[in-house]
Amino acid sequence: MSKLVIDMMGGDRGVTATKEGVRLYQQAHPETELILVGKKEELADMPSFKIIDARDVVPMEAGVMEVLRLRESSLVKAVDSVLSEGAAGVVSTGSTGAFLSASTLKLKKIPGVLRPALITDFPTKTLGKKVTILDVGASSENTSEELVQFALMGSLYSEAANGIVSPQVYLLSNGSEEGKGSPEGKGAYDLLKGTNRFAFKGNIEAREVMSGEADVVVTDGYSGNVLLKGVEGTAKVMSGLLKDAFSRNLSGKLGYLLARKGLKRMKETMDYKNTGGALLIGVNAVVVKAHGNSDGVAFMNAIKVADKLASSSIVEKIRKGLANA
Amino acid sequence: MSKLVIDMMGGDRGVTATKEGVRLYQQAHPETELILVGKKEELADMPSFKIIDARDVVPMEAGVMEVLRLRESSLVKAVDSVLSEGAAGVVSTGSTGAFLSASTLKLKKIPGVLRPALITDFPTKTLGKKVTILDVGASSENTSEELVQFALMGSLYSEAANGIVSPQVYLLSNGSEEGKGSPEGKGAYDLLKGTNRFAFKGNIEAREVMSGEADVVVTDGYSGNVLLKGVEGTAKVMSGLLKDAFSRNLSGKLGYLLARKGLKRMKETMDYKNTGGALLIGVNAVVVKAHGNSDGVAFMNAIKVADKLASSSIVEKIRKGLANA
Repeated sequence: MSKLVIDMMGGDRGVTATKEGVRLYQQAHPETELILVGKKEELADMPSFKIIDARDVVPMEAGVMEVLRLRESSLVKAVDSVLSEGAAGVVSTGSTGAFLSASTLKLKKIPGVLRPALITDFPTKTLGKKVTILDVGASSENTSEELVQFALMGSLYSEAANGIVSPQVYLLSNGSEEGKGSPEGKGAYDLLKGTNRFAFKGNIEAREVMSGEADVVVTDGYSGNVLLKGVEGTAKVMSGLLKDAFSRNLSGKLGYLLARKGLKRMKETMDYKNTGGALLIGVNAVVVKAHGNSDGVAFMNAIKVADKLASSSIVEKIRKGLANA
Repeated sequence: MSKLVIDMMGGDRGVTATKEGVRLYQQAHPETELILVGKKEELADMPSFKIIDARDVVPMEAGVMEVLRLRESSLVKAVDSVLSEGAAGVVSTGSTGAFLSASTLKLKKIPGVLRPALITDFPTKTLGKKVTILDVGASSENTSEELVQFALMGSLYSEAANGIVSPQVYLLSNGSEEGKGSPEGKGAYDLLKGTNRFAFKGNIEAREVMSGEADVVVTDGYSGNVLLKGVEGTAKVMSGLLKDAFSRNLSGKLGYLLARKGLKRMKETMDYKNTGGALLIGVNAVVVKAHGNSDGVAFMNAIKVADKLASSSIVEKIRKGLANA
């Protein structure tokens, strides 16, 4: 039975989406305690939940320092409430930079963690199979030692979140052979080679990340962010072209109707809303960032991820994993 | 009237594809002189071309040093022939690393060039509009000063190859605001800010690269390679899912038939075969690397790009651009 704090404000779609997400999740999982943070008058129709009033909303463009001054914001209050309420985690759709900074500063890194990482799941060509990528943007650069820790944390996450036994861990590189990669990546390869703490399988090119072979792909935060957004951008462009193809004339529209079952499967596979957001791994709580434009279902999925990770004691597992390192 | 050297060997599809590409191009452009390098017995049915016999083929996995010892290989002989035949450029489908190393060492960098870059065009969501990206993998790391030169060379390429007047040049980054980016990217931003030599427009995220706004996107070779292959991988996965959607049952097959015109347009937009490969920019000749699995049409497009760049005196333009820097 987990306790989670939910920042209800700051998403592109307002409280309508977050409230729908909370209601959907609570119906399915009444045993999980959800504490809602936001403007109390906007949450007045949620009487069965504990509400923590917060008067401000962090603007999307807020800088790190600005956020910490916004002590009355729902985002900062939600992070604070993890400690004051003894909760296992927190979910927010707010500004990524602001949420990560507040979480790292207030919840602190797990002892031994060099740098927390933003970790998320990508779809693969195999229906239902996911690949976990970290870091996708908590940092702008990383050392070899940080990449090695990412590999360990990624492996533990893959087991806990996706139920993978002995996850296949790869390093993102510009070639699959040993000796390829950024200078930091090459250093990490040397340190990972021959490890027996998890299944390190070598380098992987960006082209193969979604092929279904890898369970975990480790990268520095800058390149990981390029990969994440490059995949999103390509999917967006292709979806747009596909929409054009189906709407340009009656023949195309009929074609869509006939093929829609298969197309729906493709859409579900590629839809980021099904992945439930990204986790900040390496801090002393489950910190889940939902997409800024999450609708009710996407927000529900973010809460689901947080609950699953809290129930699987991911923080405790990382603490132990690093203590044995 | 350009003279180009063509390495006929080393592609995944053998000489059948390269011969078809050469024939197709020659029919359309009889004024261009193509010199073919390869096993003379395999090129015996090409009597209207000058043939330079080469007995070896560079293996795909050949290291840099190994290549230079393979003096009788078609790849090395093709690069050598640029000098001995006074040609404007060379086209090969061979191993990227080997081709770039041989070209840089033998043809030499243009005076003032810090590092040559691999430059290529991506499709955008706007039909027919391309975006130029460099470096997509000649280097594994780059300094701020190298990125600044890439911006200049990219702008000159965009004018010459794509006919863009005053190309809009962006820096790839993990955020669109100033102050985002890798350490090298931030340094390049500071150096580029306020330049009046070309239209520098600031940072761009990977998600927006294909939105059609940017004409040129500058990145270090490692992240550029991740972006290129991430886009390719996503397109491949989505195309596979689409194929499944259309082939799973009769209804899907009919749907495909009805929507096929629009779908063809999508396929053409996303197809890398239409982009004609990548150019190594910054050396004293037009060096075009065609995709390893190029078919006849793709190889013809690679020759077309080489001819267009040779005719537009891209090498001379970069020489002048750097001399004025």
